[in-house]
Amino acid sequence: MSQARFERVRRALGEFGLDALLLSTGADLPWLTGYTAMPLERLTMLVLPTDGDPTLVVPRLEAPRVVSQPDLFELRPWEETEDPVAVVADLVGARRSLAISDRAWAGPLLELQASLPDAKWQRASIVTGPLRAVKDADEIIALRNASAAADRVATALVQGEIDLIGRTEAEVSREISDRLLEEGHQRVNFAIVGSGPNAASPHHDASSRVIGRGESVVCDFGGVLDGYCSDITRTVFTGEPPSEFRDLYTVLERAQAEAVGAACAGIPCEDVDAIARRIITDAGYGPNFVHRTGHGIGLEEHEDPYIVAGNCDRLRVGNAFSIEPGIYVEGKWGARIEDIVIVNEYGPESLNNVDHILYWVA
Amino acid sequence: MSQARFERVRRALGEFGLDALLLSTGADLPWLTGYTAMPLERLTMLVLPTDGDPTLVVPRLEAPRVVSQPDLFELRPWEETEDPVAVVADLVGARRSLAISDRAWAGPLLELQASLPDAKWQRASIVTGPLRAVKDADEIIALRNASAAADRVATALVQGEIDLIGRTEAEVSREISDRLLEEGHQRVNFAIVGSGPNAASPHHDASSRVIGRGESVVCDFGGVLDGYCSDITRTVFTGEPPSEFRDLYTVLERAQAEAVGAACAGIPCEDVDAIARRIITDAGYGPNFVHRTGHGIGLEEHEDPYIVAGNCDRLRVGNAFSIEPGIYVEGKWGARIEDIVIVNEYGPESLNNVDHILYWVA
Repeated sequence: MSQARFERVRRALGEFGLDALLLSTGADLPWLTGYTAMPLERLTMLVLPTDGDPTLVVPRLEAPRVVSQPDLFELRPWEETEDPVAVVADLVGARRSLAISDRAWAGPLLELQASLPDAKWQRASIVTGPLRAVKDADEIIALRNASAAADRVATALVQGEIDLIGRTEAEVSREISDRLLEEGHQRVNFAIVGSGPNAASPHHDASSRVIGRGESVVCDFGGVLDGYCSDITRTVFTGEPPSEFRDLYTVLERAQAEAVGAACAGIPCEDVDAIARRIITDAGYGPNFVHRTGHGIGLEEHEDPYIVAGNCDRLRVGNAFSIEPGIYVEGKWGARIEDIVIVNEYGPESLNNVDHILYWVA
Repeated sequence: MSQARFERVRRALGEFGLDALLLSTGADLPWLTGYTAMPLERLTMLVLPTDGDPTLVVPRLEAPRVVSQPDLFELRPWEETEDPVAVVADLVGARRSLAISDRAWAGPLLELQASLPDAKWQRASIVTGPLRAVKDADEIIALRNASAAADRVATALVQGEIDLIGRTEAEVSREISDRLLEEGHQRVNFAIVGSGPNAASPHHDASSRVIGRGESVVCDFGGVLDGYCSDITRTVFTGEPPSEFRDLYTVLERAQAEAVGAACAGIPCEDVDAIARRIITDAGYGPNFVHRTGHGIGLEEHEDPYIVAGNCDRLRVGNAFSIEPGIYVEGKWGARIEDIVIVNEYGPESLNNVDHILYWVA
């Protein structure tokens, strides 16, 4: 997008002793150039040598989609009967230490490895992950807009405007998806609706199960608005929740709030996870919190920084990530609360602002 | 999905001297097991040793999504703080000759290569491509249903039920997408609308350009219905087409029809491409046909067999693919006609049956 991002990438390539960066499918390429490779079998790859000018290798018939930015990169369209791997290998030349998009496909990587037998390969994210994790002002505005749109859908959910009882999870999921689009999202990434025992499966899709009374319903949804992702979870109860569920929910609410409150610049990511986990564990639900506390968000729905045990990276100003503890009781019910949080100079700021109280819907 | 597919895969692994197959993102895994890996950063991978029992390595929180099929594979959920690459490497053990999904991500492949330094890697598609390219009876029914649904949308287009003049390409694209969903698709893969000069860009998206009178409009759309893809292109003209365009279209129509007619079992794929290309070239439009004639279709929108120069594989009964020549005049207009064709015992059969005549819409 800008010469400044190219400069930062080049500097990081030098720091990691890399000779070139190869970007294909995944979000690194659009972050750097504004262009997204089509996720199809024809290879698109930006070759950015640490010591030379970048070239975007692109299928001839997709070349018209590229907005030409001659100050940023050259365009090298390849013809239908040409071998794009040979084109890339030629641009790499004698360079040995290479990094490739984490989400590039294995097929072309294997062919590049065969064409460049002396090369040593690394994940591009060692360079791009920390850079992309620090959002600039425009990116924070984009994330704020996406979260605000998701909030409007979540508000409709908790206020009972979206009917639940008597409808299938899939029907509710479809309505949530439609509302995300109406609120300005260009794409829906997911709209999980898990009711009753399905609420205990964190990555449940949305099934033909009809939602009944006296059930917890976990709704976790998000999409893409002007390139940036939203992601929010709210749990509602159909009818009056039993005290056992209310107790569980109170623990969860506190764990989520305290983890958000701790998410200041300088704290290791794993410590934020530990704060949520300790509260849940102390209340006796440790084995029921089966996933990490959160994930970074931006151009991709999951990216650096990951809020997980073992990640000793410290939060920085400009980081954006979810805080989403959950408690799941197999065969019975489950609950999760998720907000997107950014770290600013003064501390954590939640981009989602729909209330966390346990809503009972009719 | 069935023991029979596992058996065929195992036999092919032996023929290629492979010790194990590793399947992750992409369509090989759902084709074989019915389970689709979530396209996120947590690794899902089926490890299928040629000489042993298959194991599906899956993130703990996605494990409830897997329909257990103990007769087909074991499940090995991994915990949030576990290293899934180590789990996979352990299952691979001393096996050396490995194949991995073409659309697995480079990130985990690089980590597996580091963990298994003596392994030799190949694309899984050398095994799965030819097997998946021969559709069974159920798959042909699914493709037939998806094509019939796309046909209903294309019929609305050519009969002028979808307004074009005065609307933006993006608005028309959105209506086509909505109609694909109404006609039973669960997902829209793309809805290209290229008008006027944009019709000359084969992979044009759909822009804010307002469609005017006296323009060709290329509409290429498809999605997924019950797991299988549709893909159809029709070109219409807004108002009466000039004779120059009619001549071009007549050439295109003949090229498409003759390529379909030639698509019998036993003919090399590149010969089908050559037939369309020769007709277009003889009419003086050779440089204007800038892409291959077609691609296979099934669980993926593009898969084997590719109808392209250089592909000497011969068509077989059960193959399903597009035949979609196009003629593009830069800055002016373009046209493409696309149908999905299957090869049966008696010859080619088009699954799309919307007329090819040049429709003029008001």
